[in-house]
Amino acid sequence: MTTQQLTNQIRQKKSFLCIGLDVDLNKIPQHLLATEDPIFEFNKVIIDATHDLAVAYKPNTAFYEAYGIKGWISLEKTIAYINQKHPEIFTIADAKRGDIGNTSAMYAKAFLQDMAFDSVTVAPYMGKDSVEPFLAVEDKFTILLALTSNEGAFDFQTKSVDGKELYKQVIEMSKSWKNSENLMYVVGATKAEFFTEIRKIIPNSFLLVPGVGAQGGSLSEVCKYGMSENVGLLINSSRGIIYASQEKDFAEKAREEALKIQQEMEHILK
Amino acid sequence: MTTQQLTNQIRQKKSFLCIGLDVDLNKIPQHLLATEDPIFEFNKVIIDATHDLAVAYKPNTAFYEAYGIKGWISLEKTIAYINQKHPEIFTIADAKRGDIGNTSAMYAKAFLQDMAFDSVTVAPYMGKDSVEPFLAVEDKFTILLALTSNEGAFDFQTKSVDGKELYKQVIEMSKSWKNSENLMYVVGATKAEFFTEIRKIIPNSFLLVPGVGAQGGSLSEVCKYGMSENVGLLINSSRGIIYASQEKDFAEKAREEALKIQQEMEHILK
Repeated sequence: MTTQQLTNQIRQKKSFLCIGLDVDLNKIPQHLLATEDPIFEFNKVIIDATHDLAVAYKPNTAFYEAYGIKGWISLEKTIAYINQKHPEIFTIADAKRGDIGNTSAMYAKAFLQDMAFDSVTVAPYMGKDSVEPFLAVEDKFTILLALTSNEGAFDFQTKSVDGKELYKQVIEMSKSWKNSENLMYVVGATKAEFFTEIRKIIPNSFLLVPGVGAQGGSLSEVCKYGMSENVGLLINSSRGIIYASQEKDFAEKAREEALKIQQEMEHILK
Repeated sequence: MTTQQLTNQIRQKKSFLCIGLDVDLNKIPQHLLATEDPIFEFNKVIIDATHDLAVAYKPNTAFYEAYGIKGWISLEKTIAYINQKHPEIFTIADAKRGDIGNTSAMYAKAFLQDMAFDSVTVAPYMGKDSVEPFLAVEDKFTILLALTSNEGAFDFQTKSVDGKELYKQVIEMSKSWKNSENLMYVVGATKAEFFTEIRKIIPNSFLLVPGVGAQGGSLSEVCKYGMSENVGLLINSSRGIIYASQEKDFAEKAREEALKIQQEMEHILK
């Protein structure tokens, strides 16, 4: 997928919503536990109920690894289902990987080629040669952690490195990496005032924005400071949508929550 | 396992060697490809041939994820085999994970509890609340990336943050985290002169040291600057040992290479 195709999808659906598929068996409707693959069943129903309101889905790999082999089967079935049934959707493996070159290449193979996600999230701590193997995969995106939505973001990311915050150094340096046109960035919604500064460095790059809703970030604030000409934002919501109800009406309630956000987005896009 | 038990094992085996189980199907002896689970078969033979010379095994998860479900099955079988047959061995899931709190807790469950690794490597970029869920698991260790062995280590890790290199800030700050006694650190062998500085901050913590051999680091240099009273070092070698031969004699040749390193270590421990 190209960023142009992503922007087209956003304009068409009047939405830049990404739904986080962070499935916890303790939180899904209990009647699904009797099915063969409850995680996949849950995802399938959520996807079918929301795919016209969202432009991206983002399974966080931790929630699948926590169930071992079964979890990995659910993850593979989920991405295969999205790619087959809703090929216009942008998919994100929220894996936060990163290792030395030949090892990162293995992760790139796993997520971008074999499972055929459109993108994968990557941690920047190990620098250029840990990220470039992901960037080398054609027509795919690497979403680099810049400024995350958690408290610990202030431990290192906002510290001054040679007179400039680390997250800004990460973004600036990443622009010089090979195939940097395949980069997007994670920027937490809980720090809306930082978007102005970030847009000075990367005016057009897509930003994946967690932290709206459950973590307290404001959609309108993020859009005010972070929206670019090609929209350039994917706003993630996980728990607020997928766990809107734990009863048999969970799909309906998830759709209602997604619709609320989509309508707010439609209003902003005008 | 406690660090005391790890040190006891080191004294007994006269070795602080960690063997990296980074299995690539293109590099293992071709006759193994006919077996049902070539990765596990390879690991089993390597482990049986070297377990008295090594104190730790470290599968890098990327090499397993690259083979999808099959790879995860091989990984689970490998860790189960070590835990059952050689319970004295210290095991490291080289996964370089890290995410917001509730998500890191999922990774901790997967690696430290369900698969029962003794430790897992974790990236520090997201700060305290991304690491503490790993530290919370009793009798287990979190091996934090401090200074890695790759070129990209100089992109951010060695940059000055408020007058002190980022990797030192990471180590210093990590000492204040809850259950910080469960921390170990990754420090690359390619930067032996940095060990002196690191030992000023953490005189006794165990350091997992990649980069000896294939990546050019020197064992004697690392020990000169990095060894603590309780040894405090786990020196990793992967390719140099496990791919010493790609023929039917691969186990024998792997043992020969491990023995060379063990003998060098025995000499140093005197």
